[in-house]
Amino acid sequence: MAKKPPAPRLSDDQLFDWLRLIRSENVGPRTFRALLNACGGARAALEALPDLARRGGARRQIRVATTDEIDREFALARKLKVRFVALGEADYPPVLRQIDSAPPIVALRGREEALQQPAVAIVGSRNASAAGLTFADRLARGIGQAGYVVVSGLARGVDQRVHVASLATGTIGVLAGGHARPYPEEAIPLIERIVEHGAVISEMPIEWEPRGRDFPRRNRIVSGLALATVVVEAARSSGSLITARFALEQNRQVFAAPGSPLDPRAEGTNELLKQGASICTSADDVVTALAPTRPTEMFAALDDGGGAGEPLWGEHAILGVDPDTIPRTTPGEELDEAVGAAYVASDRLEAARDRIVALLGPAPITLDNLARAAEASARDVRVALMELELAGRIEFSGGDRVALKPADEAERSSPP
Amino acid sequence: MAKKPPAPRLSDDQLFDWLRLIRSENVGPRTFRALLNACGGARAALEALPDLARRGGARRQIRVATTDEIDREFALARKLKVRFVALGEADYPPVLRQIDSAPPIVALRGREEALQQPAVAIVGSRNASAAGLTFADRLARGIGQAGYVVVSGLARGVDQRVHVASLATGTIGVLAGGHARPYPEEAIPLIERIVEHGAVISEMPIEWEPRGRDFPRRNRIVSGLALATVVVEAARSSGSLITARFALEQNRQVFAAPGSPLDPRAEGTNELLKQGASICTSADDVVTALAPTRPTEMFAALDDGGGAGEPLWGEHAILGVDPDTIPRTTPGEELDEAVGAAYVASDRLEAARDRIVALLGPAPITLDNLARAAEASARDVRVALMELELAGRIEFSGGDRVALKPADEAERSSPP
Repeated sequence: MAKKPPAPRLSDDQLFDWLRLIRSENVGPRTFRALLNACGGARAALEALPDLARRGGARRQIRVATTDEIDREFALARKLKVRFVALGEADYPPVLRQIDSAPPIVALRGREEALQQPAVAIVGSRNASAAGLTFADRLARGIGQAGYVVVSGLARGVDQRVHVASLATGTIGVLAGGHARPYPEEAIPLIERIVEHGAVISEMPIEWEPRGRDFPRRNRIVSGLALATVVVEAARSSGSLITARFALEQNRQVFAAPGSPLDPRAEGTNELLKQGASICTSADDVVTALAPTRPTEMFAALDDGGGAGEPLWGEHAILGVDPDTIPRTTPGEELDEAVGAAYVASDRLEAARDRIVALLGPAPITLDNLARAAEASARDVRVALMELELAGRIEFSGGDRVALKPADEAERSSPP
Repeated sequence: MAKKPPAPRLSDDQLFDWLRLIRSENVGPRTFRALLNACGGARAALEALPDLARRGGARRQIRVATTDEIDREFALARKLKVRFVALGEADYPPVLRQIDSAPPIVALRGREEALQQPAVAIVGSRNASAAGLTFADRLARGIGQAGYVVVSGLARGVDQRVHVASLATGTIGVLAGGHARPYPEEAIPLIERIVEHGAVISEMPIEWEPRGRDFPRRNRIVSGLALATVVVEAARSSGSLITARFALEQNRQVFAAPGSPLDPRAEGTNELLKQGASICTSADDVVTALAPTRPTEMFAALDDGGGAGEPLWGEHAILGVDPDTIPRTTPGEELDEAVGAAYVASDRLEAARDRIVALLGPAPITLDNLARAAEASARDVRVALMELELAGRIEFSGGDRVALKPADEAERSSPP
């Protein structure tokens, strides 16, 4: 960490556009990236949005976040001492950056240094047993003392216990809603203590009231911030298992605490062990396993070189986008899709999109299989899917699978 | 099982000699095999014993079991309805036969069919928790209902609970002492019930009172009878872990039931899971894992072809001894070690034995390393070790390691 190279930073205008883009309808982290790829920047993407959604088959105008809304979010953020950190900036958590659906912007309260330290997520049941809570406490203290920040989800039970146990050594709480709507309410005093000692973060609009589906979505950030996720106690269909599944998808280590075969609160963790999770009966198990990944060089390596803190001319670099994914003119094609140029449609793309829609159904299929079946280039598939996602017609699952949304669901508005 | 070929059977005289040989001082299952290899039969081995032990460096006469002692054991066996089954006979448990230190003779009370069925060992703490006992019960019933005989060690706690739970489907109890000294005494009524429904076996002299070191020795038979061993609850240095270690050495599957990291009674089982044991939270886990090894063909394949139940002319075949390990005349050697001939010493062997003694110390080394360092043939090493073991000067550990006994220990008499 000592000699980390200076990293790029968005200009105020760029940050404004980024926030406005990610707050627009049907724009998730994945589409955000695709839009920056296709359009060369957030400003251009914002301009292209209505057109792209229409091409994807949206039946009504896509809702682009207004500048008033973003002004209001910035104002509220100032009041609550919330800072925004963009993907690729120096303050962005380096390990979170590696996940597929890394939030383009993280809203942070507290000490941003916490986001730079190696972290371990500890999660578990809301209605944990006394033994489960005691173990969670012991584990969080041990892992904290070994130099790791402890990440969790602020929920009743195991989550809150591990936050309290790691206040002294560093802890990060991830909200499922916005900073102006802290949830659960009972955790508000704890949240304030975490803000003093560690950090509380959110990817959601600052006034967002969390709903059911926001919790699994949040869980990918809990696991994504951490080198490893430990599940302390979890019943058979516990949210903690979703966090564990995300950790696996993110190629992070998963640990589970064992429990009696007769204890329903251990069914989920025992099942994880059967599926190959590492067994955790003490902090040492985690610390020992992570030791080889600890060196600070790893964290240095995750940062881009980039300019010395000055605003970037373009936003591709800050996203770390693979240049090959950027549309560009190739021989024989009559497209003009140079870097930074606004996205340009074509008959070929139109035809590919039609084939893709025809091929998609309610059962998720992999992007590879889709591209093969559609006989389209990976790039055309990507662009078509971006349009369809903006139109609210498809949904991704597991990172590399996509399905058509049921018609009624596609009509409902998605998060802001 | 349907068309199992008829298997060999020892004559009454042969059985008498076998029993007498295995009941003689310093003759364990391994030395028993080596003696039959070297001497061609138990009778010849009995005659050679004093000489061999002297050559190995015994300071006093080796105690060969008397014919009176063996008469007495046979008489008591008749009274207690104990039958003797010899290694290689049709009634010998086919899976037990595969282990390195398979007892040459098993003394059996109860239904010998039980020894022919595929079996699973379930073991655990003497002072198990209520949950541990309930789980043991559930597990034994499930595994029994799936068609496996359940093997255990008759001890208080988990062992007795699994015997009771599997009485209806078949169970085998393994004694650490002899049949005339059933241990623990509290288990006597249970033992009588097992004899009715299953089998109780022992490798020890019928009047043997079990001592501390007889229990680990017995545990190799518990695991050796079974395709898999399940440990239900075990503290950090529990005898059940010895059974698990034997199972691993015998290339059998090891399962462990998980438990809370805060429960000292689960420390041993959780540790097994860390070391790679399979997790077991239900009978299904074991039954599913064993399914591929179930076919009865496997059991048929384990039997020798052999004569139609008639007495064998020689005892090599019944042991399934590798013919290459039998001393025989080779060109250039002036030895006369033909099959069945009495063992003959030589200067070369003498020299090899001296080198081996010089090389051995209190730290166990592998037989391979020993043979290499001694610059002796594998056969000479084997014969020299047999002599040294008869002289009570060495001890084996882990099947393929050997060490010199401390001088005081070598003086003490070993089990009969």
